[in-house]
Amino acid sequence: MTFTEMLRAAQERHGSMLCVGLDPEPARFPAGLKGDPQRIYDFCAAIADATGDLAIAFKPQIAYFAAHGAEPQLEKLMRHLRASHPHVPVILDAKRGDIGSTAEQYAREAFERYGADAVTLSPFMGFDSVQPYLKYGDKGAFLLCRTSNPGGDDLQNQRLASVEGQPLLYEHIARLAQGPWNANGQLGLVVGATYPSEIERVRALAPTVPLLIPGIGARGAMRWPPSRPVGAPMHRSW
Amino acid sequence: MTFTEMLRAAQERHGSMLCVGLDPEPARFPAGLKGDPQRIYDFCAAIADATGDLAIAFKPQIAYFAAHGAEPQLEKLMRHLRASHPHVPVILDAKRGDIGSTAEQYAREAFERYGADAVTLSPFMGFDSVQPYLKYGDKGAFLLCRTSNPGGDDLQNQRLASVEGQPLLYEHIARLAQGPWNANGQLGLVVGATYPSEIERVRALAPTVPLLIPGIGARGAMRWPPSRPVGAPMHRSW
Repeated sequence: MTFTEMLRAAQERHGSMLCVGLDPEPARFPAGLKGDPQRIYDFCAAIADATGDLAIAFKPQIAYFAAHGAEPQLEKLMRHLRASHPHVPVILDAKRGDIGSTAEQYAREAFERYGADAVTLSPFMGFDSVQPYLKYGDKGAFLLCRTSNPGGDDLQNQRLASVEGQPLLYEHIARLAQGPWNANGQLGLVVGATYPSEIERVRALAPTVPLLIPGIGARGAMRWPPSRPVGAPMHRSW
Repeated sequence: MTFTEMLRAAQERHGSMLCVGLDPEPARFPAGLKGDPQRIYDFCAAIADATGDLAIAFKPQIAYFAAHGAEPQLEKLMRHLRASHPHVPVILDAKRGDIGSTAEQYAREAFERYGADAVTLSPFMGFDSVQPYLKYGDKGAFLLCRTSNPGGDDLQNQRLASVEGQPLLYEHIARLAQGPWNANGQLGLVVGATYPSEIERVRALAPTVPLLIPGIGARGAMRWPPSRPVGAPMHRSW
C-alpha cells in the first residue's frame, strides 16, 4: 500500500481530515515532566492514543527529539504508532533539503531508521534534492510550498519574472508538485492555514496532491475550514 | 570570541581558506569499516587530525550520522574536535529550515547539544526561521544561497519581478544576508564552486560575509580559485 493509498484509506475509515502534530515542547508538559527524554515519549504516545480513532496521520516533529538527544525515544514512538495505530500513516516532519548523496542519507534516516510513511521537505535546492526520497516508491513527501509564519512572504511570495505567467514562487512550487516533479504521485504540499485564499489557490494549481495544512492548533491560525473543502488533511499541533 | 572572529583567527594562524567537510559515507570507508557507528567516528576523527593544521573550519554533515543512529558518535566527534583542534571552528552542516518555535529546538540541537560554532540553514521559510539561531550571539549561520547541484537552478536561478532591480532569487538572498538580515554580522552564505562567475556575483552583492564554497572535492566542481580571491573559506569533502 502506498502512502497516498494509506492516507485515503484512513480518511475513509475515520471520516476525518485530521493530522495530529506531535511537537513535544517540554515547556508545555504537565508539571514534573520537564526535559526527561522518556517524558517526551510518554507525552507523544498519550496524545496519539487519545486521537488515534480520529487521526488520518500523525506528524512527529523531529527537532523536539533532536534538541534533547531523544532519538531513541522517537524510534520507540514510531514503533508504538505502528503497533497501536497501524492504519494511521506517519509523516516525519523534518523539512530536510540537501543534495543527492546527502538526501539519500536523510531518506534512509526517515524511511529505514524511523520507518516513516512520508516526510516533509524543502524544495529550495531543486528536484534532485527531492528525488532520493521518491526512490522509496511506497513513501510520500510533502514539499514546503506556502508557510504562514511571518517570514513566509520573504521568498515564497515573490513573483517570478522568468516563469511563464509570472507566478509567485509558491504557485510555481505547487505546479511543479502537481506536474513535472510528481511522476509517481508521491508528492504533497505544505500550505499554512492562515490565509484560506492561498490554500484555494494552491488547490487550484495542484488539484490532486494531498495538502498538509498546519496551523489549526497552538499556532493561532484562523478557524478551519474555508468556504469549500480541499480534500486535504488538516493539522492540529500539541 | 564570535564565530566570525574565530574563523578569521584560524585563517591567519593556518594561512589557509580550507574548510574540511566530514561526510562519512560508509560505502567509501576502507574495507572492513562499513556501517559500524564507531567507524564513522574513527573515519572523521582521522581526517580531522590529518588536516587540523591546515583547516580553518570543520564541517560535519549530520545526515551521515542520523542515517546510522550515530548521534552519540557525532557528540564524541564534536568533543574531540574541540579538545584536539580548539582553534578550528566547527560548522554543523544541517541545512535546517523551520518556523520559530521549531527552529529554537534545532538551534538548541546544533549549539547546545553538539556545541557547534555555526550551522548551515535554508532561507526558504524567511527571516523568522533564521532569527532563533542568531539569538546565540557568538554563533554563526550560513544560508543556502546558490547551490551547484543540477536542481540548483530550479528555484534559486529564477528572476524576481517583485524585487527592485529584478534580481535572481539567489542574488536577493545574498543581499538579505549582507544587509537587513545580518544586524550582528553572524551570517554567511553557501555558494557552490561550480560556477565561479556566480561566486563573484555573490561576493559583489555581499562583500563582507564569509562564503562557504562546497564542491572542491568529490563533488567534481572545477578547480579553485577563480580569477580573483573572494576572501572565503574553501571546502574539501571526504
